[in-house]
Amino acid sequence: MGSSLQLIYPWIRSPLVVCSPMLRISQPALAVAVSHAGGLGFVAGGYDADELTLNMENAVDLLKGLNPPVPSQTGVLPIGIGFVLWGCDLERSVHVIQQFVPAAVWLFAASSNDQYALWASRIRDATQRRTQIWVQVAGVKEGLEVVRVAQPDVLVAQGNDAGGHGMKRSASVISLVPELRDSLDAQGFNHTAVLAAGGIVDGRGAAAALVLGADGVVMGTRFLASREAVVVKGYQQELLRAEDGGVCTVRSKLFDRVKETNGWPEGYNGRAFVNRTFLDAKNGMPDKQNISLHKQEVSQGDTDGGLKARTIRYAGTGVGLIHDVVPAAEIVARVTAEAENSLGETINNLKAGN
Amino acid sequence: MGSSLQLIYPWIRSPLVVCSPMLRISQPALAVAVSHAGGLGFVAGGYDADELTLNMENAVDLLKGLNPPVPSQTGVLPIGIGFVLWGCDLERSVHVIQQFVPAAVWLFAASSNDQYALWASRIRDATQRRTQIWVQVAGVKEGLEVVRVAQPDVLVAQGNDAGGHGMKRSASVISLVPELRDSLDAQGFNHTAVLAAGGIVDGRGAAAALVLGADGVVMGTRFLASREAVVVKGYQQELLRAEDGGVCTVRSKLFDRVKETNGWPEGYNGRAFVNRTFLDAKNGMPDKQNISLHKQEVSQGDTDGGLKARTIRYAGTGVGLIHDVVPAAEIVARVTAEAENSLGETINNLKAGN
Repeated sequence: MGSSLQLIYPWIRSPLVVCSPMLRISQPALAVAVSHAGGLGFVAGGYDADELTLNMENAVDLLKGLNPPVPSQTGVLPIGIGFVLWGCDLERSVHVIQQFVPAAVWLFAASSNDQYALWASRIRDATQRRTQIWVQVAGVKEGLEVVRVAQPDVLVAQGNDAGGHGMKRSASVISLVPELRDSLDAQGFNHTAVLAAGGIVDGRGAAAALVLGADGVVMGTRFLASREAVVVKGYQQELLRAEDGGVCTVRSKLFDRVKETNGWPEGYNGRAFVNRTFLDAKNGMPDKQNISLHKQEVSQGDTDGGLKARTIRYAGTGVGLIHDVVPAAEIVARVTAEAENSLGETINNLKAGN
Repeated sequence: MGSSLQLIYPWIRSPLVVCSPMLRISQPALAVAVSHAGGLGFVAGGYDADELTLNMENAVDLLKGLNPPVPSQTGVLPIGIGFVLWGCDLERSVHVIQQFVPAAVWLFAASSNDQYALWASRIRDATQRRTQIWVQVAGVKEGLEVVRVAQPDVLVAQGNDAGGHGMKRSASVISLVPELRDSLDAQGFNHTAVLAAGGIVDGRGAAAALVLGADGVVMGTRFLASREAVVVKGYQQELLRAEDGGVCTVRSKLFDRVKETNGWPEGYNGRAFVNRTFLDAKNGMPDKQNISLHKQEVSQGDTDGGLKARTIRYAGTGVGLIHDVVPAAEIVARVTAEAENSLGETINNLKAGN
C-alpha cells in the first residue's frame, strides 16, 4: 500500500510521514516544509474560510519559491487541508478546495457519518477527484461505516495516545490498526489506506505502526516542536521538559468545558497536559470558577506551563520522547531513516535469538 | 537483550511470549503449557498461600510428566508466580517461593515502591537469586523509581490497552515502551529488561513491541481464549464475538466498586467489557443497586455476556483480533512465527518503496 500512496503523492518518501492539521498551529510554512521534505503537510482549515483562503495563497507562494519544486500532479497542490466538520461551512469550504485543489482533504468530527459522505461527494465533484478524501476515525465499526458511506481514500486511525481532540473511548494504535486493517480487508476494502496516529513521535513508533499494518504515520505533537509550528515559546519549552507522557498528559472533556469550545459532537474529548486547571477540577472546583481563572491567565499571554499553569495545551503521550525543536524537514528525515534502521535491527536481533 | 533472557530462561523461543498471571484463570495447566511451548507461563498467586501451594504441587507434577522436559536451570521451575502485593502475605508467599523456586516472580500493585524492594530482597535471599524479580509498571517515573529501589531483572511495561487491573492514567505501549527504554538506558539501567503488555494478541503486536524496544511481550486476553485457561464458556464466547476492542471495553474504577474488591491502592482501575453494569452506572444507577443486581446475576452462574449482562469480565483492547480458542502452545507458536514474518514483510515493503 505504501507504494500505491506514492503513485498518488509522487513526492513522498517511504514510510509516509504526515503532519496533522493542528488548529492555528499547522499553518502554510509547516505544511509546505513537511511536504518539501518528502512527507505530507496539512494546513488546519480553521473555522473561517476567508482566513483559510489567505493561508492557501500564502502556501501557493511558498511552494512556488521552492527549488526544486515538489513534484505533484499537474494542478494539484502537494499539501492538504484539514476540516473540523461541525465548525465549517460546506459551501465556503468546497469553494476554497476547488480554488486550490489540495492533494488531500482531511475530514474530522462530523455530526454524523452522512456528513462525511456529503463532503466527500462535493469535494470529488469540485476537483474531478484530484483531491483525495481522508477521514479520521478512532474505532473499527466507525471506520467501516465511514468507508461504506463515504469511500475515503485514506482512514486516519487515531489511537487513545493522541494529543488534542479524539474519541473518549478508543484503543491505541497497537490494537486499533491491525483490527481496522483486518476488518477492511475482510469487507473488500483492501484499497483503503490506513494511517496510524497517536503516540508516534520517532522512527521506532513509525516502524511499529507499519508492522501493525499501517501505510504510514501521522504525527502532531512531534511537529509542535518544529521551528515552523506557530506556537508560543512556553508551549514548546513545556514539550521539551515533559516526561512520562502517559502521566503528564490526560484525556478529559474538562478542557472543552473550560475553553468553552462547546461545538464538539458527543463522544469527543481531548488529551492535554495535566495542569492546575485539571487538578483544581479534580479537587472539586466548579467549572465557572475554573473558566474564569483560565481566562485570566490566558489574557496574560505565554506561560511556562507546568502543574501551576492554567492554560490548556494539547499534547500526546509521545511527548516524553521529544528532546529538541528542529526544522520540520529534520523530523521527517529522522523518522524515515530511523524507521528503516529500527526494523533492520529488530529483525537481526530476532534472528540472532533463534 | 532477547538473547540474554535466553541465558536465564534457556527454554524460551525468540521473541519471548509470556502469559500473565490472571487471577483464578492462570492456573498450572496454562502456565506449564506456555513454558512447554517456549514461552513463559505464570501461575496467579491469588490471595491464599495454601491454595497456591497446592497449585504449585500440581504444576510440579505437570512439569514432571512432560517428555522431553522443559530445560530449566537445576532446581528452578520453568514457570513463574504472580503476586498482587496489597493482598498477599509476605512471609507465607516467600515460604512458597522458597519451596518451589519459580524461574520468576511477578510483583504487582504494591502499596509503595518500598514494598517492591522488601519483597525483592526477601525473595532473592530465599532462593539465592535463582528466582528473577519482575515488577509491573505503567509509567516511566514509576519504572525508574522501582528500578532504583528494587533492582528488578524485568519491568513489565503495561499500556492503557491492557485488560484487567492497571493504572488509570497511562500511555499505551506505543510511547511507554520507548520512553521507558530510553530513560532506563540514560540512567545506566541498560541491563533491566522491558516487556510490553497491553493490546498485544498476535505476531504483529509482538513485532511492534520489539521494534519499540521491548525484549518480549506479555499477553493476558489472548490466553483467556486458550484451552487451558480456567474460564467459563460464556466468557470465551464473548471474547470470540467481541469487535472494536477499544469501544467494547472500557477502563473504569466502577468494576472494583461493583465487585467490592476494595483493596487496590490509589490510582488503579481495570479494563473490562462494556456491559449493563457500566451502562446503568453511566445513566446514574447508584452503586448499591448495581452491586446487588450484579451479585444476583453472578449467583446464577455463567452468562453469555454482552450489553445486557452484568457480570464483570476483564478484557483488553486486542479482543477484536481474537477469533478462536486454541491450545496455549498454538498461541505461542503463532505469535513467534508471525512476529518474524511481519517484520520481514514490512522491511521488504519499505525497501520496495524507497
